[in-house]
Amino acid sequence: MSQEQKREHYHKVRMERKKAQIDAAIARADTEKGLLLVITGNGKGKSTSAFGMIGRALGHGKKVGVCQFIKSRTDTGEEAFFGQQDNCEWHVLGDGFTWDTQDRTGDIATSERGWAVATKMLKDPSFDLVILDELTYLLSYDYLDKDVVLNTLSERPEMQHVVVTGRSAIADLRELADTVSEIKDEKHAYKNGIKAQKGIDY
Amino acid sequence: MSQEQKREHYHKVRMERKKAQIDAAIARADTEKGLLLVITGNGKGKSTSAFGMIGRALGHGKKVGVCQFIKSRTDTGEEAFFGQQDNCEWHVLGDGFTWDTQDRTGDIATSERGWAVATKMLKDPSFDLVILDELTYLLSYDYLDKDVVLNTLSERPEMQHVVVTGRSAIADLRELADTVSEIKDEKHAYKNGIKAQKGIDY
Repeated sequence: MSQEQKREHYHKVRMERKKAQIDAAIARADTEKGLLLVITGNGKGKSTSAFGMIGRALGHGKKVGVCQFIKSRTDTGEEAFFGQQDNCEWHVLGDGFTWDTQDRTGDIATSERGWAVATKMLKDPSFDLVILDELTYLLSYDYLDKDVVLNTLSERPEMQHVVVTGRSAIADLRELADTVSEIKDEKHAYKNGIKAQKGIDY
Repeated sequence: MSQEQKREHYHKVRMERKKAQIDAAIARADTEKGLLLVITGNGKGKSTSAFGMIGRALGHGKKVGVCQFIKSRTDTGEEAFFGQQDNCEWHVLGDGFTWDTQDRTGDIATSERGWAVATKMLKDPSFDLVILDELTYLLSYDYLDKDVVLNTLSERPEMQHVVVTGRSAIADLRELADTVSEIKDEKHAYKNGIKAQKGIDY
């Protein structure tokens, strides 16, 4: 055998073995249920990761609800685009970041009003996917009662998927989740003096 | 001052300081340019993170091109939804994972055909955002010439954003990127016997 044929041959042997392992794993994974996904960490891509799932869900004819808990601006690309889709209900429920409001009592009231909107969705089985964007902060800042939030998530409709985003997800939320992705900020354009870019950052 | 008033007061003091720091950072970040983002790591949410940016870009009236390099299936929610949008050009260019094809020579030919499609977008300034989904594998498996890929990325139109996704991004690609997010798989439903869910995983 030539060098290239050998490479080809060993590639095939390795890939046959890998395929057998992966096929077995796929066969084992046979449960369907509504998932709770937590996308946390300090890196770029948490909210957009949730928004990408909106696209997937709408593509399969599913109904989506979105609650943005911190954001107050309504000029974002995500709202302009997804908010106008037939099967997508979009709510901007925030009042800006804590350092912008500088008002703890006000933030708590805003959080509670937002949570009431989310609760409706989490009790309504017609929503196949609910995005709770930046909910983590309301838990880590103690703006919402942790037990109320976790119980509502636990008792949601069986086939409803929920995606929670934001930095510093608390331990109890991670524990309840089916999938937790921690996005690490290995490098960020912003730190090199590049400002937030339309279509990428908002 | 009562306990609650004290808490309120110190919250305000901390948040004033934080706001000053953040405002200064925002003032320093004044450059606009096309970004190269790499979303890598073994966790859930890499491709969806790129897809979320499609939503943001379309919401601002921008034009988007998508190349999916590994995937061969055309029944995904993302393609059904984004692929039908006016300003979005969608190409499924893969032939399945290496362990499915088990054919190194065939995979290289497929990769080169896919790269030709991507190259056209990367030379066309009418595309504001180009998604190169799962491109990382074509570099880590040596299916494409690294220098050709990195040069084409470097020489793309100045204001064009590019998002590259996939596990195990090679060091040279990370170095060239403006933003690198590494998604760590802290917990994954799949490992607990839950199969890939429509609207979430595809």
